[in-house]
Amino acid sequence: MRTVQGDLESALDKLFGRPIETACAGRTDAGVHALGQVVSAPGAPDDADPEDVLKALNGMCGPSIAVTAVAPAPDDFHARFSARSRAYIYALWDDAVPDPFLARTAWHHPGRLDVDAMNEAAGHLTGPHDFRSFGRLPDDSASAERVLFELRAARVGSLIRIRARANAFIQQMVRSLVGTLVQVGEGRRNPEEIRAVLAARDRSAAGPVAPPHGLCLVAVEYDSGWSRPFDPAA
Amino acid sequence: MRTVQGDLESALDKLFGRPIETACAGRTDAGVHALGQVVSAPGAPDDADPEDVLKALNGMCGPSIAVTAVAPAPDDFHARFSARSRAYIYALWDDAVPDPFLARTAWHHPGRLDVDAMNEAAGHLTGPHDFRSFGRLPDDSASAERVLFELRAARVGSLIRIRARANAFIQQMVRSLVGTLVQVGEGRRNPEEIRAVLAARDRSAAGPVAPPHGLCLVAVEYDSGWSRPFDPAA
Repeated sequence: MRTVQGDLESALDKLFGRPIETACAGRTDAGVHALGQVVSAPGAPDDADPEDVLKALNGMCGPSIAVTAVAPAPDDFHARFSARSRAYIYALWDDAVPDPFLARTAWHHPGRLDVDAMNEAAGHLTGPHDFRSFGRLPDDSASAERVLFELRAARVGSLIRIRARANAFIQQMVRSLVGTLVQVGEGRRNPEEIRAVLAARDRSAAGPVAPPHGLCLVAVEYDSGWSRPFDPAA
Repeated sequence: MRTVQGDLESALDKLFGRPIETACAGRTDAGVHALGQVVSAPGAPDDADPEDVLKALNGMCGPSIAVTAVAPAPDDFHARFSARSRAYIYALWDDAVPDPFLARTAWHHPGRLDVDAMNEAAGHLTGPHDFRSFGRLPDDSASAERVLFELRAARVGSLIRIRARANAFIQQMVRSLVGTLVQVGEGRRNPEEIRAVLAARDRSAAGPVAPPHGLCLVAVEYDSGWSRPFDPAA
């Protein structure tokens, strides 16, 4: 399967004439978008000119991949392990009529969702928790302890944007949180029920996994700041 | 070639069991988008339930076509001839790095454009003029007299949106105006020169026709108001 990381590594291989491995800051499953992804490539030559690398990669990777900045990093920098937190936005369109302009970047839910109820449920999910009800782990002994700093839905017309920010996420966690919040927004689950879903530590307690195309990794936080303009308080 | 109008007419034919001809308010050449297009179908039965027609059309036409409203109209209503004015927006992205999220709806111009110069030039184009320098006519004797109420570029970051509003446009007029304004924004033409382009009444005097994918018909004005929320003064 073609992946953004694969295309980027192929371009780096060609550019430097040797295999270059990369690490990505945030998980983006197939179909998920990213605006502020960060990629480290420790095998790239130290003396490469960042501007030249930027131009070469954009020349080779477009139009669905864009490299917005290239910079040298300390030897111990790792896009994933050095990250302090990640922010995702999940977009939902809840008008009966779909919006063709949003078809690739928002999940179309034909019935109106109750955003207030969704936010009440979301309030039970923020904080440090064991999130194994909301995602996939490599094996049962792996830790699902994560700190969810923010989970909040905001409506503008028929567009609902759910912001999720955590130190890290387990696989499919944002989409699983969204799928469960949507059940609350539909009135099929009570916001209070979400406490029990979390406590169950069992995937079958949560709602379905929302489709990938509504999800976007927006920004990644490091000691030096966010990978792109991002206001955690907004 | 597949067209939005063709797909819509096929759906109407199926729905009503007879050929239904339609008229569209605003020209959208191949590749041009529309948010607030208006279509009249005088041959549709008077007793059809608007809600049923809306649902049936959306069921048959998705995902790249969405019907947002269906309503009965007076016998003398014609989507095109009854329209008082049309508003288009042309989107340009002028960062060196393309934005994959805008690749289908904005023209990527890799060099920065001077929006102030573009607006100075645009000031020479508004008003009633013979616009034959900026478009295609069915034949030389056809009138190119149109009233351009507004032509204005506004920048938000690297996104430039050019609003164009007129009683009507001749074919390729918005894209031709945009192509010429871009030459001004590049510094290749002086804003003052635009007067001579207009006066030439000759297509070869204008700049190239901008690509269709950056253009969107936003709203159409009738005696009863705009086809979607639109503020001509914004």
